[in-house]
Amino acid sequence: MRILILGGDGYLGWPTALRFAAQGHDVSLVDDFSRRRWHEEAGTGSLTPIADFDARLAAWAEVSGTEVRSFVGSVQDGDFLDGVVAETRPEAVVHYGQQASAPYSMASREKAVETQYANVIGNLNLLFSIRDHVPDCHLVKLGTMGEYGQPEIDIEEGYIEIEHKGRRDTLPFPKLPASLYHCSKVHDSTNIHFACRTWGLRATDLNQGVVYGIDTDETSGDERLITRFDYDEIFGTVLNRFCLQAVIGHPLTVYGAGTQTRGFLNIRDTIACVELAVANAADRGEFRVFNQFTEQFSVLELAELVKHAGEHLGYEVEIRHYENPRVEKEQHYYNAVHTKLLDLGLEPTLLGEELVESMIHVIERYKGNAIEGAIDPRTRWNPAKSPAGQA
Amino acid sequence: MRILILGGDGYLGWPTALRFAAQGHDVSLVDDFSRRRWHEEAGTGSLTPIADFDARLAAWAEVSGTEVRSFVGSVQDGDFLDGVVAETRPEAVVHYGQQASAPYSMASREKAVETQYANVIGNLNLLFSIRDHVPDCHLVKLGTMGEYGQPEIDIEEGYIEIEHKGRRDTLPFPKLPASLYHCSKVHDSTNIHFACRTWGLRATDLNQGVVYGIDTDETSGDERLITRFDYDEIFGTVLNRFCLQAVIGHPLTVYGAGTQTRGFLNIRDTIACVELAVANAADRGEFRVFNQFTEQFSVLELAELVKHAGEHLGYEVEIRHYENPRVEKEQHYYNAVHTKLLDLGLEPTLLGEELVESMIHVIERYKGNAIEGAIDPRTRWNPAKSPAGQA
Repeated sequence: MRILILGGDGYLGWPTALRFAAQGHDVSLVDDFSRRRWHEEAGTGSLTPIADFDARLAAWAEVSGTEVRSFVGSVQDGDFLDGVVAETRPEAVVHYGQQASAPYSMASREKAVETQYANVIGNLNLLFSIRDHVPDCHLVKLGTMGEYGQPEIDIEEGYIEIEHKGRRDTLPFPKLPASLYHCSKVHDSTNIHFACRTWGLRATDLNQGVVYGIDTDETSGDERLITRFDYDEIFGTVLNRFCLQAVIGHPLTVYGAGTQTRGFLNIRDTIACVELAVANAADRGEFRVFNQFTEQFSVLELAELVKHAGEHLGYEVEIRHYENPRVEKEQHYYNAVHTKLLDLGLEPTLLGEELVESMIHVIERYKGNAIEGAIDPRTRWNPAKSPAGQA
Repeated sequence: MRILILGGDGYLGWPTALRFAAQGHDVSLVDDFSRRRWHEEAGTGSLTPIADFDARLAAWAEVSGTEVRSFVGSVQDGDFLDGVVAETRPEAVVHYGQQASAPYSMASREKAVETQYANVIGNLNLLFSIRDHVPDCHLVKLGTMGEYGQPEIDIEEGYIEIEHKGRRDTLPFPKLPASLYHCSKVHDSTNIHFACRTWGLRATDLNQGVVYGIDTDETSGDERLITRFDYDEIFGTVLNRFCLQAVIGHPLTVYGAGTQTRGFLNIRDTIACVELAVANAADRGEFRVFNQFTEQFSVLELAELVKHAGEHLGYEVEIRHYENPRVEKEQHYYNAVHTKLLDLGLEPTLLGEELVESMIHVIERYKGNAIEGAIDPRTRWNPAKSPAGQA
């Protein structure tokens, strides 16, 4: 199958690309290295020593004997993206090519605008290019569970049947996004749904939970193929951050009470879910939504798991409660349906102490790269509130 | 009260400005003349001979003895807008400063991107400026009934109480926007709601129906104060278009069966609703939504009303069904609640033959300006479908 991966240099895009290439698909990548650039601007970077794009592509060719095509440019550049789609004529597009950090989007007006511009306009360009060149192509778009927020009712997969004043309809599930980044993903969902209704496109929105992990089958064999691992307050995800913190002796940074509950999944399951979505395309005109996570945890549960695993390996691990820099509910109902990917055959890699220990072992190799000053939370959702600090 | 009106040179922004100025408020306007520019690019224009911005401001000062401040620039320019908000320190901002045409947003990728960029980024800039300079300011934002689309259930005002699996919550009403322009308004609603929840801003989203009419109390006395009147396929609204068509002997352009039903209101009621919203501010942290229309009609009912009124005045009026250039339901359920503005005291100006006749009389004065080639529908929602033409 001809598969185009946008954001193919990223944490998830790169291992996804290698998986499809390893299976013999005809894979093309687009990236503009914005994640690398944002890190450079902030003086931070990946814990893992990721090779530059050309070097990792060359290493993959050497290791696998298969070529992956690459296009360097931005999805916000409509003419560039249109040219790539016209040239590669993909049967599936996997769209990871977005600014994916909630704190980044909340740091300033400029960064909020950058986020919504990059995400909404990039995705809109893509919809037009699919419509105009490959209308039968299946768009697999990375969304986020954070689009839903924390409603008082169970979260369904994209839609909800509502009975109201004696009538009934199945409508998009109402959204309470948690940051301006999450808002941008809601906007994308709205635009993609419109394109499916109006132009008959086919799309799957993967409302992904919080990803953790480093290794996948294709990235772990050769260090030149390793994917990035972010642990800083802007781009790091919570469990990855906690594991690094345990290794370098930094207190685990629990925001507020830590009773916030979210859906989580292993990076291996991200790749498996995207594979399942691509292998089972949505119908023409269908906007399909999958909730892509395998387990629900509170932040404090994760901290306790990491503390326990770390101590088992001989680390002293402190859990510290920081004043919550975000505006979010700490005590809340949370129950999200996530059966559609299981129905397609997903076999979850569940989280446990052994898995955390294996992450810690990988992190130990690279702990010398850690910049401790990038760890504590500084980006506040509401700057008008009292300054953040340790509670 | 210090009131800032964005889009103050427009069809609705200009009469709104004059109303608040006439009442003695301290009024400032922002506009970048994009509507005038889009018309120039298309070779079309307002039927009414609108004065340029400086001339109409000078005429108002002469007629009323009151000054209205003006700032020429774009809401997409975050630094410019931030400077205006910091300087004028508004207690209320009325935000009309957007690309407001559905067909314009569907004409090409470039125009879709221009629409979503102008609307979403302009509004996002505004939210930050209010947060940073005047957090107590009341944002009165023009939304549209087209955000809801045509669900099978009654449309409520912004929110709906949902009972689901034994639990209950009041959540944003699900949206099925009807064009990429309407999508942009959904995006704005999502961003504003987030800003109210997160930063404690106060906002009212006026989900407006389709506006018709020309005159308001302040614009009708002196021709230099008249507001614009668009009748072309891109910027004209349906009833205004039908009235002009009747006068110049062009068939009334009913799209498809004409059984599409929407909410409508008189331009005088737009001004009255905005006045009511400004006079009754939302609370801090509240995102309030009003459905701003007074009556529901089908397109065919409006055509028949105009035909009857036109024939009463001696015109021969033909109703012609055109192949529908839009992708929309023609047979559908439609019942939208609109009681909140009535509860605040709105006294609707209802539509009838007399009102249509008075619009026709104003149009007769300026019919020589009409460009007949700009009337027939050409912008198609789905270019992949068979070419549009007369059904």
